[in-house]
Amino acid sequence: MKNKRIRDYGIRIGKLETGKNNLLTDVAGVLVGHITIDNGQVKTGVTTILPHARNIFREKVLASCHVINGFGKAAGLMQIEEMGTIETPIVLVNTLSVGVAYDALVDYLLSANEDIGVTTGTVNPVVCECNDGFLNDIRGKHLKKEHVFASIKNATVFFEEGAVGAGTGMSCFGFKGGIGSASRRVMLDGKEYVLGVLVLSNFGVQEDLTINGLKFRRTAENACSGSTLAEGVDKGSAVIVVAMDIPLTERQLKRVLKRAVVGLCRVGSFLGNTSGEVVVGFTTANNIYHYQQQDIRQIGMLYEERIDDVFRAAAEATEESVLNSLVCSERTIGRDNNLRDSLKYYLDSLV
Amino acid sequence: MKNKRIRDYGIRIGKLETGKNNLLTDVAGVLVGHITIDNGQVKTGVTTILPHARNIFREKVLASCHVINGFGKAAGLMQIEEMGTIETPIVLVNTLSVGVAYDALVDYLLSANEDIGVTTGTVNPVVCECNDGFLNDIRGKHLKKEHVFASIKNATVFFEEGAVGAGTGMSCFGFKGGIGSASRRVMLDGKEYVLGVLVLSNFGVQEDLTINGLKFRRTAENACSGSTLAEGVDKGSAVIVVAMDIPLTERQLKRVLKRAVVGLCRVGSFLGNTSGEVVVGFTTANNIYHYQQQDIRQIGMLYEERIDDVFRAAAEATEESVLNSLVCSERTIGRDNNLRDSLKYYLDSLV
Amino acid sequence: MKNKRIRDYGIRIGKLETGKNNLLTDVAGVLVGHITIDNGQVKTGVTTILPHARNIFREKVLASCHVINGFGKAAGLMQIEEMGTIETPIVLVNTLSVGVAYDALVDYLLSANEDIGVTTGTVNPVVCECNDGFLNDIRGKHLKKEHVFASIKNATVFFEEGAVGAGTGMSCFGFKGGIGSASRRVMLDGKEYVLGVLVLSNFGVQEDLTINGLKFRRTAENACSGSTLAEGVDKGSAVIVVAMDIPLTERQLKRVLKRAVVGLCRVGSFLGNTSGEVVVGFTTANNIYHYQQQDIRQIGMLYEERIDDVFRAAAEATEESVLNSLVCSERTIGRDNNLRDSLKYYLDSLV
Amino acid sequence: MKNKRIRDYGIRIGKLETGKNNLLTDVAGVLVGHITIDNGQVKTGVTTILPHARNIFREKVLASCHVINGFGKAAGLMQIEEMGTIETPIVLVNTLSVGVAYDALVDYLLSANEDIGVTTGTVNPVVCECNDGFLNDIRGKHLKKEHVFASIKNATVFFEEGAVGAGTGMSCFGFKGGIGSASRRVMLDGKEYVLGVLVLSNFGVQEDLTINGLKFRRTAENACSGSTLAEGVDKGSAVIVVAMDIPLTERQLKRVLKRAVVGLCRVGSFLGNTSGEVVVGFTTANNIYHYQQQDIRQIGMLYEERIDDVFRAAAEATEESVLNSLVCSERTIGRDNNLRDSLKYYLDSLV
Repeated sequence: MKNKRIRDYGIRIGKLETGKNNLLTDVAGVLVGHITIDNGQVKTGVTTILPHARNIFREKVLASCHVINGFGKAAGLMQIEEMGTIETPIVLVNTLSVGVAYDALVDYLLSANEDIGVTTGTVNPVVCECNDGFLNDIRGKHLKKEHVFASIKNATVFFEEGAVGAGTGMSCFGFKGGIGSASRRVMLDGKEYVLGVLVLSNFGVQEDLTINGLKFRRTAENACSGSTLAEGVDKGSAVIVVAMDIPLTERQLKRVLKRAVVGLCRVGSFLGNTSGEVVVGFTTANNIYHYQQQDIRQIGMLYEERIDDVFRAAAEATEESVLNSLVCSERTIGRDNNLRDSLKYYLDSLV
Repeated sequence: MKNKRIRDYGIRIGKLETGKNNLLTDVAGVLVGHITIDNGQVKTGVTTILPHARNIFREKVLASCHVINGFGKAAGLMQIEEMGTIETPIVLVNTLSVGVAYDALVDYLLSANEDIGVTTGTVNPVVCECNDGFLNDIRGKHLKKEHVFASIKNATVFFEEGAVGAGTGMSCFGFKGGIGSASRRVMLDGKEYVLGVLVLSNFGVQEDLTINGLKFRRTAENACSGSTLAEGVDKGSAVIVVAMDIPLTERQLKRVLKRAVVGLCRVGSFLGNTSGEVVVGFTTANNIYHYQQQDIRQIGMLYEERIDDVFRAAAEATEESVLNSLVCSERTIGRDNNLRDSLKYYLDSLV
Repeated sequence: MKNKRIRDYGIRIGKLETGKNNLLTDVAGVLVGHITIDNGQVKTGVTTILPHARNIFREKVLASCHVINGFGKAAGLMQIEEMGTIETPIVLVNTLSVGVAYDALVDYLLSANEDIGVTTGTVNPVVCECNDGFLNDIRGKHLKKEHVFASIKNATVFFEEGAVGAGTGMSCFGFKGGIGSASRRVMLDGKEYVLGVLVLSNFGVQEDLTINGLKFRRTAENACSGSTLAEGVDKGSAVIVVAMDIPLTERQLKRVLKRAVVGLCRVGSFLGNTSGEVVVGFTTANNIYHYQQQDIRQIGMLYEERIDDVFRAAAEATEESVLNSLVCSERTIGRDNNLRDSLKYYLDSLV
Repeated sequence: MKNKRIRDYGIRIGKLETGKNNLLTDVAGVLVGHITIDNGQVKTGVTTILPHARNIFREKVLASCHVINGFGKAAGLMQIEEMGTIETPIVLVNTLSVGVAYDALVDYLLSANEDIGVTTGTVNPVVCECNDGFLNDIRGKHLKKEHVFASIKNATVFFEEGAVGAGTGMSCFGFKGGIGSASRRVMLDGKEYVLGVLVLSNFGVQEDLTINGLKFRRTAENACSGSTLAEGVDKGSAVIVVAMDIPLTERQLKRVLKRAVVGLCRVGSFLGNTSGEVVVGFTTANNIYHYQQQDIRQIGMLYEERIDDVFRAAAEATEESVLNSLVCSERTIGRDNNLRDSLKYYLDSLV
């Protein structure tokens, strides 16, 4: 990680221990790929999450989703809810690129699966989005299918955070936002499991930003000149991707995803009107095969009395992911000279 | 079964084979108890379904529910949805008796479980209802806690259908309705499973009644004098309880419950405004223990490609249950001399 | 209408009166456009519904949606649910063309609204789909953005039914399916209102087909040779678009949309596993302006005691729309010589 | 108000102005009544909210609800969701008293409405609950119907907070919890509206308590001896009642209720497994009459671009209500000498 992360400032969110790298990819098999398009007025890109490196259509992951605020254009959630599986990479782009990303996923899946549309049914592409129109020439629709393909090929364990991939043009609490991640360990039956979160942050107004309890604006007005602090209304969105290797049923997984909102609220979101906030998640513990011999099989289920630690893990990792997205992002000037400062310049003087 | 059922009239609903007795209780362990209160103006009662004869709080059944039309007062559904379990008997009563039935379930559960409210949490009573006010003096609130206790003690494999228990005062398609049941067999991995349905029928207007495709009113106006046919608006409700021994997750179970509406629509319901229609269901294949040693355990899950037969089973058994509730009910005169005829008198001349 | 419709065979569904043309477009202002792509192995197309001919983004229609079976890939439903509006044409295509159609809608909306993505937010394209892969080379992805644009330009009051537009390659109950429509009148406060339905039918197995109560297969096996009757599993889907000029709130509208399932079940659907069934609807009575001066305004709301007729209208018009989609479709040979017969050849000998 | 409230400690939550008394009852017409049962091992009671002082069954309030965590036993929510109205007082009690409270509401409604169950349908009692079993002999079921009737008669504008009514035995963040309230003003079209919240607080673990950003435990361990600080798991629940005079549709109202979670998370909840959290809300601006002459009427609807202030109002007032419930509660010793300290003793030394 080339960027300083929130823990490097001495700020420790929550009480659970982080995973090995404090990243979504601490969940074994999960990979993340970015393509960044950064060129003057154009500040956009794509971030892709692979639940595993094998054929995801044939070996689906047990999944769920949760809509915090449905002002958004995510594709694929309806079938995740109904069937409890994800069967494609999860692609994050800007709002006007959902169609292109969807189409790219179709092409990718068709090329990898000759049976789709002939001897078996179709496929359910999962695309989530935020609006990067403040910094990016979003009307220009600069994302092409090739970018999506490249982000899949790019996918790796050690991915960058900040103003990269789909996060290139995003804003959060009046600062530069983007991609952030974190993870937490959970012990069950004496064995270690991990839950990871990746956030695409694009929400919040600066007066609400709260860093581990510290009300940023109030503190900053004392510590800094305050002259460059941003005004504004919450026009954003957030995409939260949660992965884990914990055996859960679809119902249990959905309950875990519902705790992501805790992290958003703790950093200061009030879930604004146009701030579409969507959580998509999966476990790698109960994969579902497209072709299966047996009618009945066994899957793992968690004793519900032990789920609180998993809830905490989701809440803490979401909160920390948002903060990482902020401190890992550089100051950015984009479309029409619109500016987003980096939180990191303020943080040094505050903590 | 003392009453002639719909199959005894040569009417065969659907294509799947019935279970052994064509009853909800074909699912091993499931029991049904009735207490009937039939006394002049008073036509009411209680019907209780036991998922098994052991301590249900300690050994919960994996469950789900589905609200077709939420104009109704069922208690306990919110927690079934959230936690995926049923931990008490399922009690059916009339609308104004939900409070008493709830309280009776609390007493019953407290007496069987000393830990409730002291060393463990509370309990989630499940009570469903229809409005029997047309035939019954519902304002009199004639159901007492003792009736509920007695219905639990009464519970048996060979339960009655028609104007009994909670069905005593119910109306359906302008005829006397009440309790009906049916079941279907499903083969999975070469093994036989069974899905059973019990319906408390209290919905529909006579002009819509459809018996295996036959439009009753149109046919009856030719065959019968028609002078006693009932007018009216759909003021009713339906409670549908679905049991099975098929291993499903909560999500899959919910999908099965959603197919009960097929049966309602095929007999002629249009899901009228005030016709609260609620489906509650469970499987006995994946019981959930209140106290469990291990954090992770295994449960059975169905290969989704094989779920269509289970869907059909739910649809067919619901349709047949409604018809059984009609033909097993006797002509009844209740409150203020309100009258409901029995469909069985017409059926002989029609089929 | 060049095709014989189901009423022309003497079959009258339900009891309410039809609108003027018995079409979705009986709702004043609503228009429907088709582009058909029919060329050997290629049997596909696009159907577009315009809620009105003005700028839909600026003057949104109050809307809702309902997911009967979420095995499907519709885009835009999440925001309809959250915000209660539709702000683009509603585009129906095949499953693998959702991305292209989404992208076409973005282009169309951007060109008509210079504020999108600059001074105001983005836009929520609504795209619904069924899988036409049995008759169509769906992997070929033959639909282009130009087809979508042309379907919008094409939109008219007198649209065709059957194997046209998005319906070109669809199958229903083992027969050729496609586009069907119907409408019903409802009287409120002494004034006439209308509810219209358009169905894209692609579901059902032939053994379940029920025509106004008549079980098709049973009857056909007596009346016809039966040698060409189709086997198969329910692999399809249905899109149901409901329009009306009745003043309703979003909650009331959703309740109306939930009654479309009645029509599907009455023609024989059991809501099969992979049969994604989605209802999208709007009223033209309570339009919502993107830019509004006043903070508070008035909208019309229906007295709920009078909603039953609207429920019936939705149920009846859906049932009749499916039947119209069947009898208006011609026998079609498509991909790999796959064949779908037309129901109309059988209907003459049966009724 | 005899108790010091959170503002009296110099702690100001959020940025919007409070209503006149900073209480739920700042919404004109809304009344709150308590009956406290405090007698050794018995620490329980009932709190009742009247949306207005007239006949609520005849003049229903437009309402909605939102389930944050469905581990709970609230009655009546299903019909609120379906019909968009509340037609009875809202009664808050402990978990095992839901049946008695439901039955009391039935009696109350029957006595006030002779048409119920005879010439019109039944009624939908609304009862919400938390588990006060830590301090109260909950198995003793000490609440009687008379207490509920008395709480309705008691209802007043100037109600108490803290360990009163349903809050008598509740615990929150390891401290004594109970009833808290707050309100916020919102300007629309140049006119002042108000949103009020009442919380029954019974959730949270002490290590998570956050007071306007201040992490209580961390601060307290420095400032205080810390020897009496409570350990524990989140076993609780929260009921949040939101009232307003702002004209909203049911969909808009539901969106507002969804922002209550912001307040819970900001005080430190992570929405624990067994912490059933339920929001019930209504507006007095769009009352719905049981008997209405016209089929169509007008209701007020908010321009959605202006809803953010209402969201903030719900978030802020919920957060402040929880804090008021804590600081207004006295130290309490209950069942089996179980003890809950009052936060107020710590607050003086911390802020």
